Amino acid sequence: MKSSLTQSHPKGPMAASLAPAQVEKPEGIAKIGLLGASGYSGLEFLRLAKRHPGLQVVCLGVREAARRDLAEFFPGGLTGASGPGGAPGLQVIEPEELLAEAANGVIDTIVSALPHGVCKQLLAAMPEWERGIGPRIVDLSGDHRDGAGGFVYGLPELFRNEVRPAHRIANPGCYATAAILALAPAAEAGWLSGPVTVSAISGVTGAGRAATLHTSFAEANENASYYRAGGDHAHIPEIERALGQANLSVAFTPQLVPMNRGILLTAVAPLRQGKSAAKVRELYEGRYASEPFVRVLTSGQWPSTREVRGSNRCDLSVQVQHQGGTLVGLAAIDNLVKGAAGQAMQNLNCMLGWLETTGLPVEATPW
Amino acid sequence: MKSSLTQSHPKGPMAASLAPAQVEKPEGIAKIGLLGASGYSGLEFLRLAKRHPGLQVVCLGVREAARRDLAEFFPGGLTGASGPGGAPGLQVIEPEELLAEAANGVIDTIVSALPHGVCKQLLAAMPEWERGIGPRIVDLSGDHRDGAGGFVYGLPELFRNEVRPAHRIANPGCYATAAILALAPAAEAGWLSGPVTVSAISGVTGAGRAATLHTSFAEANENASYYRAGGDHAHIPEIERALGQANLSVAFTPQLVPMNRGILLTAVAPLRQGKSAAKVRELYEGRYASEPFVRVLTSGQWPSTREVRGSNRCDLSVQVQHQGGTLVGLAAIDNLVKGAAGQAMQNLNCMLGWLETTGLPVEATPW
Amino acid sequence: MKSSLTQSHPKGPMAASLAPAQVEKPEGIAKIGLLGASGYSGLEFLRLAKRHPGLQVVCLGVREAARRDLAEFFPGGLTGASGPGGAPGLQVIEPEELLAEAANGVIDTIVSALPHGVCKQLLAAMPEWERGIGPRIVDLSGDHRDGAGGFVYGLPELFRNEVRPAHRIANPGCYATAAILALAPAAEAGWLSGPVTVSAISGVTGAGRAATLHTSFAEANENASYYRAGGDHAHIPEIERALGQANLSVAFTPQLVPMNRGILLTAVAPLRQGKSAAKVRELYEGRYASEPFVRVLTSGQWPSTREVRGSNRCDLSVQVQHQGGTLVGLAAIDNLVKGAAGQAMQNLNCMLGWLETTGLPVEATPW
Amino acid sequence: MKSSLTQSHPKGPMAASLAPAQVEKPEGIAKIGLLGASGYSGLEFLRLAKRHPGLQVVCLGVREAARRDLAEFFPGGLTGASGPGGAPGLQVIEPEELLAEAANGVIDTIVSALPHGVCKQLLAAMPEWERGIGPRIVDLSGDHRDGAGGFVYGLPELFRNEVRPAHRIANPGCYATAAILALAPAAEAGWLSGPVTVSAISGVTGAGRAATLHTSFAEANENASYYRAGGDHAHIPEIERALGQANLSVAFTPQLVPMNRGILLTAVAPLRQGKSAAKVRELYEGRYASEPFVRVLTSGQWPSTREVRGSNRCDLSVQVQHQGGTLVGLAAIDNLVKGAAGQAMQNLNCMLGWLETTGLPVEATPW
Repeated sequence: MKSSLTQSHPKGPMAASLAPAQVEKPEGIAKIGLLGASGYSGLEFLRLAKRHPGLQVVCLGVREAARRDLAEFFPGGLTGASGPGGAPGLQVIEPEELLAEAANGVIDTIVSALPHGVCKQLLAAMPEWERGIGPRIVDLSGDHRDGAGGFVYGLPELFRNEVRPAHRIANPGCYATAAILALAPAAEAGWLSGPVTVSAISGVTGAGRAATLHTSFAEANENASYYRAGGDHAHIPEIERALGQANLSVAFTPQLVPMNRGILLTAVAPLRQGKSAAKVRELYEGRYASEPFVRVLTSGQWPSTREVRGSNRCDLSVQVQHQGGTLVGLAAIDNLVKGAAGQAMQNLNCMLGWLETTGLPVEATPW
Repeated sequence: MKSSLTQSHPKGPMAASLAPAQVEKPEGIAKIGLLGASGYSGLEFLRLAKRHPGLQVVCLGVREAARRDLAEFFPGGLTGASGPGGAPGLQVIEPEELLAEAANGVIDTIVSALPHGVCKQLLAAMPEWERGIGPRIVDLSGDHRDGAGGFVYGLPELFRNEVRPAHRIANPGCYATAAILALAPAAEAGWLSGPVTVSAISGVTGAGRAATLHTSFAEANENASYYRAGGDHAHIPEIERALGQANLSVAFTPQLVPMNRGILLTAVAPLRQGKSAAKVRELYEGRYASEPFVRVLTSGQWPSTREVRGSNRCDLSVQVQHQGGTLVGLAAIDNLVKGAAGQAMQNLNCMLGWLETTGLPVEATPW
Repeated sequence: MKSSLTQSHPKGPMAASLAPAQVEKPEGIAKIGLLGASGYSGLEFLRLAKRHPGLQVVCLGVREAARRDLAEFFPGGLTGASGPGGAPGLQVIEPEELLAEAANGVIDTIVSALPHGVCKQLLAAMPEWERGIGPRIVDLSGDHRDGAGGFVYGLPELFRNEVRPAHRIANPGCYATAAILALAPAAEAGWLSGPVTVSAISGVTGAGRAATLHTSFAEANENASYYRAGGDHAHIPEIERALGQANLSVAFTPQLVPMNRGILLTAVAPLRQGKSAAKVRELYEGRYASEPFVRVLTSGQWPSTREVRGSNRCDLSVQVQHQGGTLVGLAAIDNLVKGAAGQAMQNLNCMLGWLETTGLPVEATPW
Repeated sequence: MKSSLTQSHPKGPMAASLAPAQVEKPEGIAKIGLLGASGYSGLEFLRLAKRHPGLQVVCLGVREAARRDLAEFFPGGLTGASGPGGAPGLQVIEPEELLAEAANGVIDTIVSALPHGVCKQLLAAMPEWERGIGPRIVDLSGDHRDGAGGFVYGLPELFRNEVRPAHRIANPGCYATAAILALAPAAEAGWLSGPVTVSAISGVTGAGRAATLHTSFAEANENASYYRAGGDHAHIPEIERALGQANLSVAFTPQLVPMNRGILLTAVAPLRQGKSAAKVRELYEGRYASEPFVRVLTSGQWPSTREVRGSNRCDLSVQVQHQGGTLVGLAAIDNLVKGAAGQAMQNLNCMLGWLETTGLPVEATPW
């Protein structure tokens, strides 16, 4: 694999082999403080972390925690506190208190699932951490995806070699993850000649957990709707940056559909020279052959969100339209797993030296 | 409006004025035999026809009617038979018997909502009808959209002048209706320079009423899936034909999402010269200004299926991406109304001389 | 029909014949001010009123109307304002202003779909109206179901003779409507010997339109939940009162399920003497024989919300369990129609002298 | 705890301590043949088994396996075969072949998730197995819940001591599991004086995976419906038997609601003497204090299916209505876990000497 994209964004070859830095059981347990634990991505990380042998969530940071009905925010015994015969519940504290716990060394890793803008603001109070001291940080928000503050863009399939030594990771956006994986092989190979048009549908957890009229059940049920179509969606520069050298202009049309989880994304781009469908599929299969979380579907199969529900997998299908003139990449991910909490754990596995698949479901829970 | 497209498909100017041929109450009542009445489109036509002052559904044609549990197929008192204190129910007969009723003059109009292939086969037994004798026919299937058998393509917004005098109408497909309305103004104006890529999502009624594993509740719920993506979908030639002279190659990526009704469609095409968003919107607003069933949304508004649920309206939004190089047309319709039964009634209104909106809901039933 | 219940609540025989007071076209149009127009029941009334030849909604009262995005609250062109080529939109004003319009005679009828507590508070400023002057009022909230302020309990199937001459109507609650219709024939006949246990499920529009976490899509989807089970639900006294003389204690277990519309209700009560299923069905069929909006299903059929979706019908099925010792009444209604806006219109038809079915759908829109 | 129920059904004290027979890692791995693997319960068992250190699913029995599109039946990489970089897939064979594999000793345990009637029929060909030789069997169907063929009724919370030494287990029905757990403490204590009325709602996976019109998406979506209400539902004798000595007549009203998973059940029964809510809750809390999979909710909390989604837990809430005269037990389970595959694994844990919670999720996956 030629690494033509690597200059534009973090550095180094993309399709780094999985083997060298990984062992099955690194020493030590990462002690995690989870910021924004009451949102969907935060809860998903909490759920996944319980399956991981090397990650211990020690405390949860929730804004105005004292004012909230935590049982409503943490259903299903998710904190451990309300489970039958369960372990004593996790401590729920204010985000600032959680940062103090990190400063005190009670936790060594911060996973932040706070809304956009909040993590950056919190970290502004800890400028010394920027010099590589302080806790490991994985930020799921869009705050640091431009590389600000020494954050590395954490899409392991493209930037694994930068992620491994990193101390701070900007976890990619859900739409961007799907779009980049759907386009990267063709972009890296220099096959794309022009502007990219992305159309995508997302389940409602993608809109966050704040109660709004637009995401109320009776409004969102039996309704498919565009939102901010054609506008300056934050995911656009993220995609353009990650596909770097290809220098592609990206337009994006997101849609909300009545389901909880899942993204289905259609990326369309002109192919530099007419390529056959077989040729394009061969390129993709080769590029992702050793990736545990990317599956390139065979001809006649297409992605569906059910096939990746609860899984950290991205399913891809590549089509060629208009007599080889147009590439259509189809992708499905679970927005809360590969699009958020699962990818955060995949990044932590890279950083901590665990096998990249540790604790992460490859198989789906279709229903 | 220049009618550059009109040579390729039926003839005549497209944006014909609504006024001349229409009166509020033409004489007489059309006596309708409804073929395929047990499917979703058939039932929707039955439901709408009860609100229309000039259409009387006289009998229903259902294959193997005698073998079926009609109460399961006609819920909610839809035939009238099971309604409380209701009128005596409609007669349910075999399709061939319904054709005989037409031959006998008991009915003068056939609306066929049979699956693709069946209507054509039935009509093969009535070759004399092809010479303009026999009943008025509106065929909702794809059997006659190529103009075979003297059928006129019934998209009134483009071909109103051909529809009015027609005796046989091929009702457009649901996806095609949305795609054509989303692209026609730009195509007619000669603004599109290259291949069109259409991505669309549909509610599950769009897949018909046959019980299949794929459309079972537990499989389709919480699932968004592509189907036949990149393949030779029957809607493609239909769109290419209707956009005629523009000579555009169309590719199509349909998706199924967990809702009953609705299509949300994204049509992307290169603009011949960079056009501003305002310029494009002006074109569309002008083109559809007098159309009762097309609404061009203002900037900052986007279509949603909820806004057209139960309505015969098509909501459109036009975007310009990549510095004016790409047109993105967004459309929402109810696949059972403007995409099927409603458009069939709109065509009948044209043919019979009723105001085109007679019996047709413009407002949505959002929930 | 013995009218044993009639002393306890409004007066007069229950199963009054439909004929006398009704003509097909009374003179005049009722000019309606619709309070709480932005909620689900309010919008449903607005939608239904457009089909009624004698009701004209003149203005809409919405609290803090000026601060709201009315397009979000009135989707689908519901006010007329945003419809394509539509009539000028309805005026949206503050509730107090709407009362002033009534005082000025601009409107002669108030339909209030405000939340519980608000209508009563507003009317407190208009004490003179209590003496029968002022506008006709139909209050959909629970504020006046105890008969306060001279309001008559508007369940026409039981209290038609009280409703017709009434000037103020308390529209029954959705659960209460289903429960009362499921039990009334047995209660009136004196067949019930002991406490009644009601278990019911409701679609999410039943919880109102305020945005809450509990009714957010991702929380309510794929979730069935009890709420306030066993508590003092406001519907309980309403049911006990309407079943009056039977002197039954009622307990109630409401549940929320992931759909927009519909109530399915199971009412269980001990039968005084063992009755056969056939005997009980005969009682119910006789009691409701002339009711246009009640359908007693035959043996082997059971209610479903789909069969009444969008309809003003109540479907009933009566079962006998435990060797004739227990009556189980099953009911389905659309909570927004027979459970709210449709019943309000039914009451207005009674009050204004229209045929009781005018403007009201009997048939369902199952999808 | 008085064990008044123990004579009627299997024998022995019910609330047997969890400790004696269980160790954390018994020797050996059970080699499982999974019959009916393509249904929802079968697939759920397959999914759960992958998390269990002592259960190895060796082969899958699917009727007419060769004729089917296995990718459609096993989505999400569930067989391992289609997973990216996955292990070689599991062998899919005919049920009879699977029995032969058991006879040959290739597998030592059969888990059967076949439809009702099929397992019994298959086993009729293996009469010698009835004498305790042959494979361990857990049958998820209703075929052996009456104790036929030496099967023990496998509800560990009531019959743990019978389950542990058993060789053949009849896994309880989903509705019966919820109903029995909701009533057992009161029934065992002799507090119930009369007939029991059960009303329950279930997600659509409860209806099996065969494609039918009734369970098609567009029919089941936005629809709550009764089915076989008041009839002789197979679950009734099962509940009556398990609650044995209490000698209660049970009536049952099942309902289908538009969600994939989950049962919410309301059990109503007259209390022998007026009991306070506190007293009843104390009884239940004591009875289930050491049960890892039963959670008695505190006052003011009610079960919801979301709280048990994907979990083997049963959430219970007990209410007292009509001045202490009526017990209302509310229960929530995941029909595919505690109602089917999870309980099968719980039974296997009992039989094999594993900690009863091994491999079984207590926490929910709410979304």
